[in-house]
Amino acid sequence: MGLMSEAFSQTLIPVCALIGILFALVQWFLVSRIRVASSGPDSYEDQLIEEDDEQVEGIDSAEVVNKKCAEIQNAISVGATSFLFTEYKYLGIFMFVFGVIIFIFLGSVKGFSTKSEPCTYNEGNLCKPALANAIFSTIAFWLGSLTSVLSGFLGMKIATFANARTTLEARKGIGKAFITAFRSGAVMGFLLAANGLLVLYVTINLFKLYYEDDWEGLYESITGYGLGGSSMALFGRVGGGIYTKAADVGADLVGKVEKNIPEDDPRNPAVIADNVGDNVGDIAGMGSDLFGSYAESSCAALFVASISSFGIHHDYAAMSYPLIISSVGIIVCLITTVIATDVVEIKTVSEIEPSLKRQLLISTVLMTVGIAGVSFLVLPSKFTLFDFGTDKVVKNWHLFFCVSIGLWAGLVIGYVTEYYTSNAYSPVQDVADSCRTGAATNVIFGLALGYKSVIIPIFAIAIAIYVSFSLAAMYGIAMSALGMLSTIATGLAIDAYGPISDNAGGIAEMAGMSHRIRERTDALDAAGNTTAAIGKGFAIGSAALVSLALFGAYVSRAGIKTVDVLTPKVFIGLIVGAMLPYWFSAMTMKSVGSAALKMVEEVRRQFNTMPGLIEGTRKPDYATCVKISTDASLKEMIPPGALVMLTPLIAGTLFGVETLAGLLAGSLVSGVQVAISASNTGGAWDNAKKYIEAGASEHARTLGPKGSDAHKAAVIGDTVGDPLKDTSGPSLNILIKLMAVESLVFAPFFASHGGLLFKYL
Amino acid sequence: MGLMSEAFSQTLIPVCALIGILFALVQWFLVSRIRVASSGPDSYEDQLIEEDDEQVEGIDSAEVVNKKCAEIQNAISVGATSFLFTEYKYLGIFMFVFGVIIFIFLGSVKGFSTKSEPCTYNEGNLCKPALANAIFSTIAFWLGSLTSVLSGFLGMKIATFANARTTLEARKGIGKAFITAFRSGAVMGFLLAANGLLVLYVTINLFKLYYEDDWEGLYESITGYGLGGSSMALFGRVGGGIYTKAADVGADLVGKVEKNIPEDDPRNPAVIADNVGDNVGDIAGMGSDLFGSYAESSCAALFVASISSFGIHHDYAAMSYPLIISSVGIIVCLITTVIATDVVEIKTVSEIEPSLKRQLLISTVLMTVGIAGVSFLVLPSKFTLFDFGTDKVVKNWHLFFCVSIGLWAGLVIGYVTEYYTSNAYSPVQDVADSCRTGAATNVIFGLALGYKSVIIPIFAIAIAIYVSFSLAAMYGIAMSALGMLSTIATGLAIDAYGPISDNAGGIAEMAGMSHRIRERTDALDAAGNTTAAIGKGFAIGSAALVSLALFGAYVSRAGIKTVDVLTPKVFIGLIVGAMLPYWFSAMTMKSVGSAALKMVEEVRRQFNTMPGLIEGTRKPDYATCVKISTDASLKEMIPPGALVMLTPLIAGTLFGVETLAGLLAGSLVSGVQVAISASNTGGAWDNAKKYIEAGASEHARTLGPKGSDAHKAAVIGDTVGDPLKDTSGPSLNILIKLMAVESLVFAPFFASHGGLLFKYL
Repeated sequence: MGLMSEAFSQTLIPVCALIGILFALVQWFLVSRIRVASSGPDSYEDQLIEEDDEQVEGIDSAEVVNKKCAEIQNAISVGATSFLFTEYKYLGIFMFVFGVIIFIFLGSVKGFSTKSEPCTYNEGNLCKPALANAIFSTIAFWLGSLTSVLSGFLGMKIATFANARTTLEARKGIGKAFITAFRSGAVMGFLLAANGLLVLYVTINLFKLYYEDDWEGLYESITGYGLGGSSMALFGRVGGGIYTKAADVGADLVGKVEKNIPEDDPRNPAVIADNVGDNVGDIAGMGSDLFGSYAESSCAALFVASISSFGIHHDYAAMSYPLIISSVGIIVCLITTVIATDVVEIKTVSEIEPSLKRQLLISTVLMTVGIAGVSFLVLPSKFTLFDFGTDKVVKNWHLFFCVSIGLWAGLVIGYVTEYYTSNAYSPVQDVADSCRTGAATNVIFGLALGYKSVIIPIFAIAIAIYVSFSLAAMYGIAMSALGMLSTIATGLAIDAYGPISDNAGGIAEMAGMSHRIRERTDALDAAGNTTAAIGKGFAIGSAALVSLALFGAYVSRAGIKTVDVLTPKVFIGLIVGAMLPYWFSAMTMKSVGSAALKMVEEVRRQFNTMPGLIEGTRKPDYATCVKISTDASLKEMIPPGALVMLTPLIAGTLFGVETLAGLLAGSLVSGVQVAISASNTGGAWDNAKKYIEAGASEHARTLGPKGSDAHKAAVIGDTVGDPLKDTSGPSLNILIKLMAVESLVFAPFFASHGGLLFKYL
Repeated sequence: MGLMSEAFSQTLIPVCALIGILFALVQWFLVSRIRVASSGPDSYEDQLIEEDDEQVEGIDSAEVVNKKCAEIQNAISVGATSFLFTEYKYLGIFMFVFGVIIFIFLGSVKGFSTKSEPCTYNEGNLCKPALANAIFSTIAFWLGSLTSVLSGFLGMKIATFANARTTLEARKGIGKAFITAFRSGAVMGFLLAANGLLVLYVTINLFKLYYEDDWEGLYESITGYGLGGSSMALFGRVGGGIYTKAADVGADLVGKVEKNIPEDDPRNPAVIADNVGDNVGDIAGMGSDLFGSYAESSCAALFVASISSFGIHHDYAAMSYPLIISSVGIIVCLITTVIATDVVEIKTVSEIEPSLKRQLLISTVLMTVGIAGVSFLVLPSKFTLFDFGTDKVVKNWHLFFCVSIGLWAGLVIGYVTEYYTSNAYSPVQDVADSCRTGAATNVIFGLALGYKSVIIPIFAIAIAIYVSFSLAAMYGIAMSALGMLSTIATGLAIDAYGPISDNAGGIAEMAGMSHRIRERTDALDAAGNTTAAIGKGFAIGSAALVSLALFGAYVSRAGIKTVDVLTPKVFIGLIVGAMLPYWFSAMTMKSVGSAALKMVEEVRRQFNTMPGLIEGTRKPDYATCVKISTDASLKEMIPPGALVMLTPLIAGTLFGVETLAGLLAGSLVSGVQVAISASNTGGAWDNAKKYIEAGASEHARTLGPKGSDAHKAAVIGDTVGDPLKDTSGPSLNILIKLMAVESLVFAPFFASHGGLLFKYL
């Protein structure tokens, strides 16, 4: 037994979660003190105080601008809320239906019998009936779905609350604006991390009332939570991704390329849809995605632990190790955030990226200490783990290494992503330079950059896998994934900061604020592109580890002893699995392309048929564009969603557990590459364009200015990258996780009734 | 024992090979009857005869044109020959050094001992010493290398011999030109297939003089032949691919985009380099590639057969089954070719693609009959195969199914590729349509098309693998690969037809022939793009099967019992292996990009500094452009080549046989996808552009004409596709094959001395 008592660990988890929520609320309060629409004379006070050192525009003008910002923010918020509600209506139906499917499939394993069964791992004891597993898995699925939806929705609300505030603060200087955007990101990060932990904790304790001593059954059912989280995330990412990119690509193609008006120009009919898209895609989608990763890695770790010695011997504190790691993570992130917002001050543009990078480093170092503490206090010094039929003796410091290596692998991925997507380094500058010879070389160089950026992250993931796999089998992998996600609050804060700044820039442009303000928000946004890529890197890296852990759990639960590539059943799974990311990407990219074409036609129609639009004397019809994005995303998210949700069911039912195992392995090893390269290629193109626009170096100025041939070529690259980095790329990590967790949940069914095709052939 | 005697099968193979060579010579003779440079008054005779029905330009003009064509053809031929000789100089050094490495690695397995060893499979008998294996593997490697180089060189010679002749025949009509290009392709196809078979047959019989009864050792050494073939192919493909695309991209970027002069315009300084590139890349590279596939699948099949019952019982006829299948394939292709050239006549452009498709179908149907005959005559009705430590009882009709399913899977891949890359169908037309909104949507739609085109080929490969794997283990896979390649002569003829037509078009343009002639060669070329994609599809599909067979042979030879994904050693191999195609693609694409940039600068320099160039009053300096391509390709082919050649050596030596097994599986399942999507995306973009240019339908005319915005967007897509379809894509199938065959050859070393890192950690 470890040194920590059950009571203490039982208290620690909810307390940390509540501290996280409280901290998020404090940050929210700080952001909310920036007044958006004028409500009285006092509201300008803090602006006036700053006036002398940072130059604020005159009060009269400020009031007008403030009102305009409030108006635009409101339009964006209303648009995003209405889209999410429509989306959730569809998802509600899906949630209900799929819950029923889970119940029927799992219930039918033992013919809906209510008789208790002998336990699989805890030999000699009686466990709860399979029907209970069906019921509780369904409930857990619904809870996971709801938490995921809530995470996405809260994120969107916070982001749309913060964007205009960031714009207004940008008038006071880059530092103020940065703090506002970052604080808002932190609200989202802490709310999500703490909320996810709390709901999981409460669910486990409630389920325990029924399951009592049957931990095997309890944690099997809990896996439904991960499935719920991830399936909502899938639709969120795909739907949101199509929405945002249809609008973005459509707006750019006509606005920037044909009409030569700047990005986010209020004359562009698709501009509101574009800004709404940032919030429903990058924010809500990403929130759901990382919540899903977090839920899944926790579930995978808990499930594997439950069939290990501390599960069987009911060592509660050790069993809660994954949750305690996450709890400590919240505290570590809290300290890191305070350092960023209150200790260090950002004064110039060039300090933003180093500051964000420092955040990653600080949280990683602190967390390593935290992991060491938790590992030695919570875990018994020696215990046995289930390792595909054999027992593996593990020491507590082994697990310290497993968690830490995941954490540090995450840092490596983050830094490498930054290197390949930030325009401060040569890769993006080379891509920008290739614009000299036109769009074609830009695209070739960008694709090559994305391919190349895969190398180091894959080695980092491979090393993390090798170490944690060797030390603690699948439990090690799951804990390694959780290690990478332990600083999720900071990761999310950094990630959410990007779209908030992007929106802030959009609002500045639309409110007609001065060029200087727009430059500041652009600088924030350029850093935001990099942080978004870093966030995606984390999401993908952790997804790879999580999927492997889930894959291992699936294999255990399905009772497979080896997944031998040299058997035809497994090999065909492997090669078809490796193909799925391509199929999925083809669907999502085509969807964005078609929706963008529709958007282009609508925007062109408005420019051509509405006189006064291009002169700015008449307001465009924003609503039609919003509707095009909404309709396209809701319609187009179904086929890729169905591909991911149905593939494991079909493969398991028709081809059996071995082929499904091969399929999961194939989609995992292939999907990671496609996802990383897509995200980084897109990020690099976006920043290559920003590099030319900003013209901050001698080299950049030879390529620019805006409107030059090189800049036009860069815009084409950026547009191509949009669906890659914001639709297909980030959705792929959900594909690999979701198929794995779904297989895990349905494993008992496949094991008992699967493989129909081979049985009858 | 089968029904066929040893003597008969011993005779059949060389006779078929000689018939193939003879047939190739006859075709060559027929092509050579078209006179290029006037050597006397009789040379116009056959043109005059045709004059009334096909309209030939007047003799005076014809003579001038003919001379011009001869001049250009000569320039291309000289350029290609000089490049290949330079390349072969480097390759000669590599061949020697790598041969020595093989000798040292394999010799060191048993400490260079000259003592006979007990056989591994043929228990109780004595086999030849490991040193003999080292010596004969090295010799086989050199023989394979030389045959590969010879294949590439002969192909280039034939193609440069045929291109001007095709141009001249185009004056008489589309049918004549088609026959010429196709016949020349057939020369190459038959020479390669027959030559490869003959050299292999002779080598085996010579090696037998030493090995006598030790078939195990004999066929182990023969695997070096495959390694030699493939390693030359790698450098041929990569070097040639970089050469051709640097020139092509460079020429297009300045010529088409900036200067608005047509493709292959003689005023473009890079035009000769571009045409040379077609011959050294698409022809010589592809010839080596397919020869490599053929050599490897034969070696894999022979090796697996040698450790099966007919190997151990010395049933010569059954042992020669793979070679007899190839022999029959030559005869089947001969019949097919005669049908294409002498029975059916092409009269209009629209008949070209159906005719080529029919070729594939006819050869497949005839070959199926051939396979049935061979299987029942040659094989014993029942025999046992080695299946990773266990024996598997197989019947002769099982093998009939294995070979046939490979053959038919090839046909499916060919047809699907045609569907996705020909502008007669909606996928390419959709891509063309997306050019309406600019280059960005064109690129997005093109990438999506490439991803989508992976689906059916992967299912076809998976089914072929499942059936042949289940029926006859790794022998089945090897035979399935050989089945796909059994009609290689026809496949190569169809494939080589593409670049020959492309060159013919180039020569027509440069010789200043009339618009009508250029239109005809363009039509041939558009079909050529599709056939090139089909050829690549075959190459990739067969590469997948071959690699799997080699992988299986490697696993047998390395003494691995299972390749379990659920072990850390294998899994890290799998994920890193899946990354390698990306690393490799990043290198090759970047190489093309950089070389193209240099080319662009040179072409711009010539246009800017040489007055009279754009007006056509002064000849450009072609030689400098040729030199840029030559230098770039020779320098840039080394890093990707080293990646592929060194990875198995490093992985095997440091991480051991299991990790290497994972690596091979990972690179196989991931590389196939990247390769197929890259080839098809590129082919589709090229034909989308041609679709707009040709303006053959109402829809196409709304997008055109040449020079319209949509056409410009299409040119950008085409340029991006160039390195994808002609450099990185086709090289990837060599990557997966080569790593597998290299692992197979070095397996004894890795098994005895490998895995250093894990041993000492």
